[in-house]
Amino acid sequence: MPDLVLLRHGESTWNAQNLFTGWTDVDLTAKGEAEARQAGALLAAEQRGGLDLRVLHTSVLTRAVRTANLTLDEMGRSWLPVRRHWRLNERHYGDLQGLNKKETAARFGAEQVKKWRRSYDVPPPPLSRDDERHPVHDDRYRDLPAAVLPDTECLADVVLRMVPYWEDAIAADLRAFPGVLVVAHGNSIRALVKYVKDISDDEIVGLEVPTGVPWWFRFDDDLELVEDRQLGDPDAIRAAAEAVARQAG
Amino acid sequence: MPDLVLLRHGESTWNAQNLFTGWTDVDLTAKGEAEARQAGALLAAEQRGGLDLRVLHTSVLTRAVRTANLTLDEMGRSWLPVRRHWRLNERHYGDLQGLNKKETAARFGAEQVKKWRRSYDVPPPPLSRDDERHPVHDDRYRDLPAAVLPDTECLADVVLRMVPYWEDAIAADLRAFPGVLVVAHGNSIRALVKYVKDISDDEIVGLEVPTGVPWWFRFDDDLELVEDRQLGDPDAIRAAAEAVARQAG
Repeated sequence: MPDLVLLRHGESTWNAQNLFTGWTDVDLTAKGEAEARQAGALLAAEQRGGLDLRVLHTSVLTRAVRTANLTLDEMGRSWLPVRRHWRLNERHYGDLQGLNKKETAARFGAEQVKKWRRSYDVPPPPLSRDDERHPVHDDRYRDLPAAVLPDTECLADVVLRMVPYWEDAIAADLRAFPGVLVVAHGNSIRALVKYVKDISDDEIVGLEVPTGVPWWFRFDDDLELVEDRQLGDPDAIRAAAEAVARQAG
Repeated sequence: MPDLVLLRHGESTWNAQNLFTGWTDVDLTAKGEAEARQAGALLAAEQRGGLDLRVLHTSVLTRAVRTANLTLDEMGRSWLPVRRHWRLNERHYGDLQGLNKKETAARFGAEQVKKWRRSYDVPPPPLSRDDERHPVHDDRYRDLPAAVLPDTECLADVVLRMVPYWEDAIAADLRAFPGVLVVAHGNSIRALVKYVKDISDDEIVGLEVPTGVPWWFRFDDDLELVEDRQLGDPDAIRAAAEAVARQAG
């Protein structure tokens, strides 16, 4: 009966400024660091009750890596084996990356921005490969085929690139270990949850993933989902999800 | 021409209290955290000059993992792929683990303690497998064959268990990547340096590895050593090595 815990990184500097972030590599705020430690405290309590996380997966974005480090420090499990992969990265937000969400609405119209943020298959305007913000210019992706690096992504694109990672890496670890921790992003977690809970295209876009709240999934030995729940105080989780909904993207 | 950087973890709580540590999983002090960040700043400067660290190896002890995390944060390279392995752990100090170094000298005699600390092939008294301090009771080693977990180690034992990791993991990464960072411990670094620089048994026991000083090795494409140097201010390095020599073990 393997366990999977999904954790969205704590608040980042660009979350705090309400900018479209995507693959931009911003760091955590002090609040985000505290959220990561709080997640670690919740997981440490569950470990005493039988949860047994034995391997960590993260994206290659600093805010997820640092959240994972702080969470594991708090759990006394900083020694876990680590896998990092770009397929767990946040949705690429194309040419909107770095723009303020309110200004973007003023410029393109609230309806259009809502479509980019909350439709399943409408990607934002693409980022030019000549633009220095494009991942082809980021050293960490140097050894990847340029074709896999997105110019922009809708949620459907994230699901498409995430599923092979589920199949090859996460599912493999769920068969090998009693528990797997994945620290990732709002939209890569949406993609994982869509796949694991078989949620429709229409419904998944409305799912809010609060920052710093561990989401626990229990599977049977055929990797069929048995149950899932979010850890922590229910009122705090609801408040966190609502806060994310107000500014997310 | 691959580069290898070896880094000894920053000061730990037991370094500060002058206790034999070995495999005991103690955390960094605030000074140790600062040393890790300082190492990161030195390496960040070298990265701007051409050093290109692309993969991280650490032991499975918290003080090495946390040093590595802080060093990479400072370098803006927290996204590096990570390998952790018990073969990079500190020398196991047997039944001396947890004892104060001065008290141990008073009890066993200064000559005997010097032999345990500075001979190549005399291990300290073994730790009983029934003792709760023994690694067989530590969850992180649960999936290893019990036979590989030491009751005590001399430096020769550390060399013996480290060489396979060099051959299978570090050398393999030096062939695949332009630069490899290894964050480990006084004696596992001694073992690595002995192997890489072909230092005699008698000489290696006198080698002091200062904490938080990155040690840069440059190889040719056949992995023959070309040159090596320690990074940072020479006076500070000498002072750090002398401080370690006064209390090390």
